[in-house]
Amino acid sequence: MCQDWPLCNGKLFPLFDPGVTVVFVDLNNTKVELLEPLGDRSPIAKFLERNPDGGMHHVCFEVDDILSARDRLAAEGARILGDGAPKMGAHGKPVLFLHPKDFDGALIELEQA
Amino acid sequence: MCQDWPLCNGKLFPLFDPGVTVVFVDLNNTKVELLEPLGDRSPIAKFLERNPDGGMHHVCFEVDDILSARDRLAAEGARILGDGAPKMGAHGKPVLFLHPKDFDGALIELEQA
Repeated sequence: MCQDWPLCNGKLFPLFDPGVTVVFVDLNNTKVELLEPLGDRSPIAKFLERNPDGGMHHVCFEVDDILSARDRLAAEGARILGDGAPKMGAHGKPVLFLHPKDFDGALIELEQA
Repeated sequence: MCQDWPLCNGKLFPLFDPGVTVVFVDLNNTKVELLEPLGDRSPIAKFLERNPDGGMHHVCFEVDDILSARDRLAAEGARILGDGAPKMGAHGKPVLFLHPKDFDGALIELEQA
């Protein structure tokens, strides 16, 4: 996906659950994550149907304590996607997703720092 | 838009050209820019038509030299939007936008650091 770019970390790896192939472009204090669907039930298949040219799928913020961040946001009315329990993310750390309708249409991911 | 959030810088200001009202949420090394249309000819009106719930409009990268970054990207085949000359952005610094079709559907902004 970006292996010939100078800043691409070159590690293209598949995540069979949830069904995406990812690679990261490392910038200063920020990473750009390139995603492609993996398998028939990829969670990004619907996004690509709606956005055939691709686009920005989500933005991820690191948080110091994912459970307290989750509980605080839920108390303020944000809906947590799935069963509310953190899953393992692409960096081997717990992640959660928040409902885009509660964030002006933007899909937000939280990752344990 | 976010004045009651802890990290919102609270400075809501209008940009009549191009026609958006913006406010920034300052994070560590990153800013989230909230945009709403201003006037009848706002450049984000079409985006909101296509995305009635809102969404992520663009991502901006700071570059050390916007003209050399532009020329390098153009030489690699990326299309620069508009007439190719940097315009004044929301921080009073020169900015340029790149064609989303050349970046997997993502609208990319460059800003002079």
